[in-house]
Amino acid sequence: MDFAYSPKARNYIERLNTFMREHVLPAEADYFSQLKRGPLPWNVPPVMLALKAKAKEAGLWNLFLPDEEFGAGLSNTDYAPLAEIMGRSFIAPEVFNCNAPDTGNMEVLAKYGSPEQQTQWLKPLLAGEYRSAFCMTEPEVASSDATNMRATALIDGDEVLLNGRKWWSTGIGHPNCKFVIFMGLTYPDGPKHARHSMVIVPMSTPGVKIERMLPVFGALDEPYGHGEVSFTNVRVPLTNIIAGPGRGFEIAQGRLGPGRIHHCMRALGAAEVALEMLCKRALTRTAFGKPLADLGGNADIIANARMAIEQSRLLTLKAAWMMDTVGAKAAMSEISQIKVVAPSVAQLVIDQAIQIHGGAGVCDDLPLTALFAYARVLRLADGPDEVHRALIAKLELKAQATKFAAQGEPV
Amino acid sequence: MDFAYSPKARNYIERLNTFMREHVLPAEADYFSQLKRGPLPWNVPPVMLALKAKAKEAGLWNLFLPDEEFGAGLSNTDYAPLAEIMGRSFIAPEVFNCNAPDTGNMEVLAKYGSPEQQTQWLKPLLAGEYRSAFCMTEPEVASSDATNMRATALIDGDEVLLNGRKWWSTGIGHPNCKFVIFMGLTYPDGPKHARHSMVIVPMSTPGVKIERMLPVFGALDEPYGHGEVSFTNVRVPLTNIIAGPGRGFEIAQGRLGPGRIHHCMRALGAAEVALEMLCKRALTRTAFGKPLADLGGNADIIANARMAIEQSRLLTLKAAWMMDTVGAKAAMSEISQIKVVAPSVAQLVIDQAIQIHGGAGVCDDLPLTALFAYARVLRLADGPDEVHRALIAKLELKAQATKFAAQGEPV
Amino acid sequence: MDFAYSPKARNYIERLNTFMREHVLPAEADYFSQLKRGPLPWNVPPVMLALKAKAKEAGLWNLFLPDEEFGAGLSNTDYAPLAEIMGRSFIAPEVFNCNAPDTGNMEVLAKYGSPEQQTQWLKPLLAGEYRSAFCMTEPEVASSDATNMRATALIDGDEVLLNGRKWWSTGIGHPNCKFVIFMGLTYPDGPKHARHSMVIVPMSTPGVKIERMLPVFGALDEPYGHGEVSFTNVRVPLTNIIAGPGRGFEIAQGRLGPGRIHHCMRALGAAEVALEMLCKRALTRTAFGKPLADLGGNADIIANARMAIEQSRLLTLKAAWMMDTVGAKAAMSEISQIKVVAPSVAQLVIDQAIQIHGGAGVCDDLPLTALFAYARVLRLADGPDEVHRALIAKLELKAQATKFAAQGEPV
Amino acid sequence: MDFAYSPKARNYIERLNTFMREHVLPAEADYFSQLKRGPLPWNVPPVMLALKAKAKEAGLWNLFLPDEEFGAGLSNTDYAPLAEIMGRSFIAPEVFNCNAPDTGNMEVLAKYGSPEQQTQWLKPLLAGEYRSAFCMTEPEVASSDATNMRATALIDGDEVLLNGRKWWSTGIGHPNCKFVIFMGLTYPDGPKHARHSMVIVPMSTPGVKIERMLPVFGALDEPYGHGEVSFTNVRVPLTNIIAGPGRGFEIAQGRLGPGRIHHCMRALGAAEVALEMLCKRALTRTAFGKPLADLGGNADIIANARMAIEQSRLLTLKAAWMMDTVGAKAAMSEISQIKVVAPSVAQLVIDQAIQIHGGAGVCDDLPLTALFAYARVLRLADGPDEVHRALIAKLELKAQATKFAAQGEPV
Repeated sequence: MDFAYSPKARNYIERLNTFMREHVLPAEADYFSQLKRGPLPWNVPPVMLALKAKAKEAGLWNLFLPDEEFGAGLSNTDYAPLAEIMGRSFIAPEVFNCNAPDTGNMEVLAKYGSPEQQTQWLKPLLAGEYRSAFCMTEPEVASSDATNMRATALIDGDEVLLNGRKWWSTGIGHPNCKFVIFMGLTYPDGPKHARHSMVIVPMSTPGVKIERMLPVFGALDEPYGHGEVSFTNVRVPLTNIIAGPGRGFEIAQGRLGPGRIHHCMRALGAAEVALEMLCKRALTRTAFGKPLADLGGNADIIANARMAIEQSRLLTLKAAWMMDTVGAKAAMSEISQIKVVAPSVAQLVIDQAIQIHGGAGVCDDLPLTALFAYARVLRLADGPDEVHRALIAKLELKAQATKFAAQGEPV
Repeated sequence: MDFAYSPKARNYIERLNTFMREHVLPAEADYFSQLKRGPLPWNVPPVMLALKAKAKEAGLWNLFLPDEEFGAGLSNTDYAPLAEIMGRSFIAPEVFNCNAPDTGNMEVLAKYGSPEQQTQWLKPLLAGEYRSAFCMTEPEVASSDATNMRATALIDGDEVLLNGRKWWSTGIGHPNCKFVIFMGLTYPDGPKHARHSMVIVPMSTPGVKIERMLPVFGALDEPYGHGEVSFTNVRVPLTNIIAGPGRGFEIAQGRLGPGRIHHCMRALGAAEVALEMLCKRALTRTAFGKPLADLGGNADIIANARMAIEQSRLLTLKAAWMMDTVGAKAAMSEISQIKVVAPSVAQLVIDQAIQIHGGAGVCDDLPLTALFAYARVLRLADGPDEVHRALIAKLELKAQATKFAAQGEPV
Repeated sequence: MDFAYSPKARNYIERLNTFMREHVLPAEADYFSQLKRGPLPWNVPPVMLALKAKAKEAGLWNLFLPDEEFGAGLSNTDYAPLAEIMGRSFIAPEVFNCNAPDTGNMEVLAKYGSPEQQTQWLKPLLAGEYRSAFCMTEPEVASSDATNMRATALIDGDEVLLNGRKWWSTGIGHPNCKFVIFMGLTYPDGPKHARHSMVIVPMSTPGVKIERMLPVFGALDEPYGHGEVSFTNVRVPLTNIIAGPGRGFEIAQGRLGPGRIHHCMRALGAAEVALEMLCKRALTRTAFGKPLADLGGNADIIANARMAIEQSRLLTLKAAWMMDTVGAKAAMSEISQIKVVAPSVAQLVIDQAIQIHGGAGVCDDLPLTALFAYARVLRLADGPDEVHRALIAKLELKAQATKFAAQGEPV
Repeated sequence: MDFAYSPKARNYIERLNTFMREHVLPAEADYFSQLKRGPLPWNVPPVMLALKAKAKEAGLWNLFLPDEEFGAGLSNTDYAPLAEIMGRSFIAPEVFNCNAPDTGNMEVLAKYGSPEQQTQWLKPLLAGEYRSAFCMTEPEVASSDATNMRATALIDGDEVLLNGRKWWSTGIGHPNCKFVIFMGLTYPDGPKHARHSMVIVPMSTPGVKIERMLPVFGALDEPYGHGEVSFTNVRVPLTNIIAGPGRGFEIAQGRLGPGRIHHCMRALGAAEVALEMLCKRALTRTAFGKPLADLGGNADIIANARMAIEQSRLLTLKAAWMMDTVGAKAAMSEISQIKVVAPSVAQLVIDQAIQIHGGAGVCDDLPLTALFAYARVLRLADGPDEVHRALIAKLELKAQATKFAAQGEPV
């Protein structure tokens, strides 16, 4: 048992922290001022291009991808602390070509893509030239239950015919978003987990229409954005199906594990930023003759935040380590656990940082409301808390029942 | 002991509910589409003028004002359920000329204003022709501790000279905002609670400058807005001081009681709207073959929300009744209690309503994120939770110590 | 709307408080020292007899019974604050002949008993000469679901034949416990709510056996006790059935409303005692150079306790008022709400009082662990929290669905 | 980073689990029936002697002691999972000679004891022949602030003169308790952390008197017990001081780290037992036609318990690992964190296990109330939660301030 990051991870941590301090954090103000907030298509702030070039040059590129050929070859455990560091800045994930949903799409294409798909779509993603989106969630049905999905990806000769409406397709507003991965029903009456296919759909395909960009607590998160997208009689070649028809569910499952670890570690990075701000305010703001740190329950809030962050980070790291050592299936409960815990911890700590800042906390002089929205949404994205809790309980009861049975006490 | 609303209150409740159903709720969509969201000055949607005229005609006007000469003459207890009903719509408070901070300003002018002040400023407010703002909180200091205030209102011959910077001056962006009530230090070395004055300052006075409008979770809340305002060598006649120099603190205290009851009841109205939406979603959305109401802890969430709302409403009504029967001073603890409880309940229930709606909950297809921002800010406005908790504890310990002493057990 | 207790209630409150201060509280130490803790049968401390005589003489007797012929004729609303006062002492409820389960049994006999049953069993209960128990809950089944009940009360000619095992029969260890009210299945295949009967069973009937007395967190609560009781071919005359065969469920429902209000108000009395102790400790104990009241989150704990108690008291009083004005059926949700809220508030406040007392809080120098056990058990007695929450949610969803339907939005 | 227990730990885990299953758990019933509950002196159940002999023979002895000469030579990290396993049975810690406070006393004597002290007192403790107690906490002062201590250990020639009153001296009721380690003021005016001494006091010394045994939630925890002990002009030789006069505080600090890890891991063992019982009940008990696991929020309770236990275990293991790698001082925050988190998690999960068991949960048919008392007391023992939270916050603020200063933003 060893709680120290590996030498490899420590090397990256140090380089990443240095790069963040020297390049990313100082560029944030420029980035936001270059980012003209207007109607689609949004622009890419030039400073982002410069940062990406620097990051690539510094070897801090595609760190998320465990594949040694395509990516940095880091394990989930080694990448986790890097994701946390990136979570400290809204712009950092893209700087290092590590932002969702491109990361998930790259993983899928690296693992399941045909050589042609990899050449055409993966390569420019890895180079940071293309952006992409993932079209899964639908507005009309409870997508927390994937079997509710209604969009179709029917095989018609050597083409796939797509129809349906998706939303929360993050990144689809980016000017460089060239394609989406679309999930739809191919065999509606097939076995529950072999009905869906994942299909590569170029944005330029006729019938693909961004109906609107969805605000999140009022913010459009440009230049990425979250789109509601309709697919009307969209036709793409059969070769655009990833891994083969009916394998969508299988791919989705594989995709989710690492993505959840990334999300959770970034959320914890955000929670650390909030706790820092909270502490700074507690130390520097005075009321009733004392720094806020000495007033009321503020010290308890700080202590509780520290304990919650520490615990959820350890759990997330353990889940990453299990992914690396025993695989996603054996880590299923732990992955659901972190997905419940980390965003909730982040939401709470950010809310408390807002509170201690008073009026400054709710306006945009500080990044706190943006952080809040980010953490809040994460309690819904990739499965709402409720679905994960249900799964954790189911696995726990199953494990306990197995144990009772082994002890001769069948239940 | 009687938990029924009075016949008078019931009469107003029925009329108000009818008016809301027939006029206000159906007009909301029009209102928001007429409200051009652009730079200052904002416009007043014509539908609002029509609604106000109708409300005045229906005798549903100035309901908040207990003064029988100027207002509807309702007690706090009788007005409380009306405030709750108005809390169900963002536009309702203005329709009935009952929106903050004009309500507080009208109370102050009705109670402390000179006849000239009442003629010039109160009368058009009561008529709904003017809007006004209240300039108290300052960006540079912890305004939760009012003695931190730095802005000055110094007497210079027959004028008052104002300097300082205020923020969160709500309503100051409204095109009809004609004046503000400014609070500043007149006698910096006077007794702690006799240092400040409240001064009427016409918006057109030289030296008054809206520096910017502050967003709240990204929203500017036009056409009211929350301004950051600088006062630079602003001069107004001595007669613009309300009640006399040095009485600002006294007036502020009197102002806060009813305002807190209004805020809390509106927050509970918002909580009820959220619970309704939560229940509707729970009944109509299906996942894993069941309505959400039958899944996981959703029933518990609904039960807990109902219990929390009921309890905080009763406490708020009791605080209102104490204001009416024993006065604001004797109700000090109860008023602080509701200020902690009601916004927190609203925040929690709204957050849970967001959660059950999934992606729909965080975008603006539904009013939930706006309701969330509203409840969240209320935990800071009119004193953050922390200050109220400290006061409640102080009063509790004092009461217990008095009791112990009476029993011969001095502590 | 009037939050003041009625003149009648205020008169009783004052007399009861005086009696408590002058007679009950000073007698507690004597009582416990007279109460020899040994094997059954337990004794009745002589001081209790003296206190009962004094209470009867002072007209503070059978206050719980709304029936004017048999009891004090107080409404639930008027009795509620008296129950709270009694909840401040373990021995008070019996002093005033107001302790469960005799209160419920007296209510049942007063309302449903035949004249003969009233003469034989109710009269001596009202006089405080008999004690009684209520045998409903069973060890083998989840009694939270009353339809699980297995004990039988079968009609055999002019006799009823009882078989089954009951537990948590409170009061059955008292030397004056002369009879129990037993609930069992008479018509196992009848309509769900017409299967059970309530039967008066003298303790001396052959086949009634106290198997053991159950400890609660280690305490036997003598001289009342909680028994596990077996009924083996117990025969009593048909005339011992209350109200008629098959009416057990109906009687049980009627019994529960007032009992829950009593329980909750007593629990709040206990919570007030705990908060007093907490405050006294906070004011008098010093650590790190300050009274505990000034350390860490203690002030917040006190404020939160005050808010929680106030709110649950108001809700309980409202439930009592609804019982009085619109009846138990219309108050069903509110009665379940208080049953969840009040014991939980009491448990939490008592737990916090324990914490601030350190080691003294967990040993029996103080009544805190006994209070804790009392509040903890109350979260199970008369229906566990879970069952009440489920009912509250069901009623809420039904009410909301009705409202939606009325608005033409059937769900 | 490696979350797997070391091979050495895994070997012990397997052997300990086997021993528990084969010997300890089956002996529990015998143990409690042999343990006659009566007045002092209590007896030692013969089955305990047999179990100890077997454990010693199996090499499962003094596992807690990292000292290779005296103990098993396990690191804190390796011993932690063993402590968790022992926490599953009340009798297990003594079986393996690993129960508090003897463990702490052995650590102190192994590390600070003179050769003579080790021969006379440590050796028989290591052999399991003696039991001992630790006399630190005092009834009259807030012992959470160690500087409050009033008992004295004054040097008088070649003797130490002890006076004072201690309580919560656990283990002092054991018939084999031969000595206590007493902490008292030697230099009342010395530097704050060099005032106290630790002194070995044989139980037979004149002036040592057990005033009473303290119940914990009604239980005396025989044959160990928690004593209130008076020391009246007790004289022991100067050589009984451990490490030298004035070093008491230093020793106490060193003693606490490992002890807190043991406590927390045992508490988590208790929490796991409670969760098992909760799950078994949820799977086997039926109400309203379903197993409890499928009702209401029970699945959420199970999921939340699993997440809380996992997280606090990881944090405890990390604290142990820090003790092993960077030492107690650097692990100060983490050790305080686990002391807050683990007992609270245990208390909550046990409380929920009680709830799902209904009446069975609060009587002594199940070990749940005993487990509850155990966890509850642990929130006070070795420093109440409040003191630990204050320390965590202080360390956090200090670390953040240092970081801000390093970034050129002194606060």
